[in-house]
Amino acid sequence: MQKLERIIGYKFKNKKLLKMALTHPSFSHNESYEKLEFLGDLILDAIVGIYLFKKYKDKDEGFLTDLKSAYVNKNYLKEIADKINLKSFARYKGENIKRTDKFLEALIGAIYLDGGFKKAERFIKKFILSKELEPLKDYKNLILNYARKFKGTEPVYEIVKVYGPSHKRKYEVKVKIKGIRNVGRGKGNSLKEAEILAAKLLYEKISKS
Amino acid sequence: MQKLERIIGYKFKNKKLLKMALTHPSFSHNESYEKLEFLGDLILDAIVGIYLFKKYKDKDEGFLTDLKSAYVNKNYLKEIADKINLKSFARYKGENIKRTDKFLEALIGAIYLDGGFKKAERFIKKFILSKELEPLKDYKNLILNYARKFKGTEPVYEIVKVYGPSHKRKYEVKVKIKGIRNVGRGKGNSLKEAEILAAKLLYEKISKS
Repeated sequence: MQKLERIIGYKFKNKKLLKMALTHPSFSHNESYEKLEFLGDLILDAIVGIYLFKKYKDKDEGFLTDLKSAYVNKNYLKEIADKINLKSFARYKGENIKRTDKFLEALIGAIYLDGGFKKAERFIKKFILSKELEPLKDYKNLILNYARKFKGTEPVYEIVKVYGPSHKRKYEVKVKIKGIRNVGRGKGNSLKEAEILAAKLLYEKISKS
Repeated sequence: MQKLERIIGYKFKNKKLLKMALTHPSFSHNESYEKLEFLGDLILDAIVGIYLFKKYKDKDEGFLTDLKSAYVNKNYLKEIADKINLKSFARYKGENIKRTDKFLEALIGAIYLDGGFKKAERFIKKFILSKELEPLKDYKNLILNYARKFKGTEPVYEIVKVYGPSHKRKYEVKVKIKGIRNVGRGKGNSLKEAEILAAKLLYEKISKS
């Protein structure tokens, strides 16, 4: 625990909070990180949003929304959680802990409860905002809005194929909009990931045509 | 403006912020509330979430998430915006301003920028958190998770009927999950509203069976 405190640059007054942030529900449901994650997620969103709002005075809210997504999306947060190696400090049962981003969000919630807004802000600036990222477009939302606006309908996602062993399942999906000939296809490690890629492809095709 | 400041119980140092919060993009795109709304939305989420987290110590994160939704969802915020009559202080072109909740979110962003976190918190406690609400379940998400977990697929929403005059369009939708006989149907003033009702119905049918 002291080692982790050194790494993150914050010393907890209440060590129980740190312990709870690093407890996966598989280990203990009652003492798990889930409520801290709820809190950390909100704190992270607000601090990143405020920071970007103040930094990019000339940009519009679309840019701010997409850039915020880049900083708070689970893949980026996982990258950071894994760099700090949060999992090695965590308590869990079984090996299948993929969502290490949840430890990170819970850690932010714990720092906020223990030290207040400023300490959480310092942690977020140091570990999350320190890297320059590109805005992350929400492609599923973009094609949803397009379909509603121009076709009075909604995109339909269809599973084309599910393959690979059960612990390494892969998904292929197809997305269509009624009245549009173009189709988007995507593959990924989760349905959501495959859908986002399919939506991206369809969005790019629509934008070009 | 002074009248509104009296109503909301906050006096702006920088009146431009208040003016901007009340400017619809139809009036002026550059001076509109959109960026303040981006900010206010995050501040509102964080303050409501922190408040509920501290108030309901014995509840789990599912309860907190649903109760937060009740306080930050657009229908409830519209209700409050309309009670303060924000639209009557706003600048806009045309008559078709329905999303008065956006003025309210922008106002929260403006109070935060002008007076800081504590002032925004005071406003939110007074106007938004003062009413007791029931948790609001996210039915679309509930049936999405159900379909993914138990059927390895996703719900499909289909438009059954679009009717009524163009300024008062009504929608009827149907939602199905492959492998499930039950169907959910819903009607509403927007596709989203109809979908939520359809999802609710299907969820209730599934829960009973």
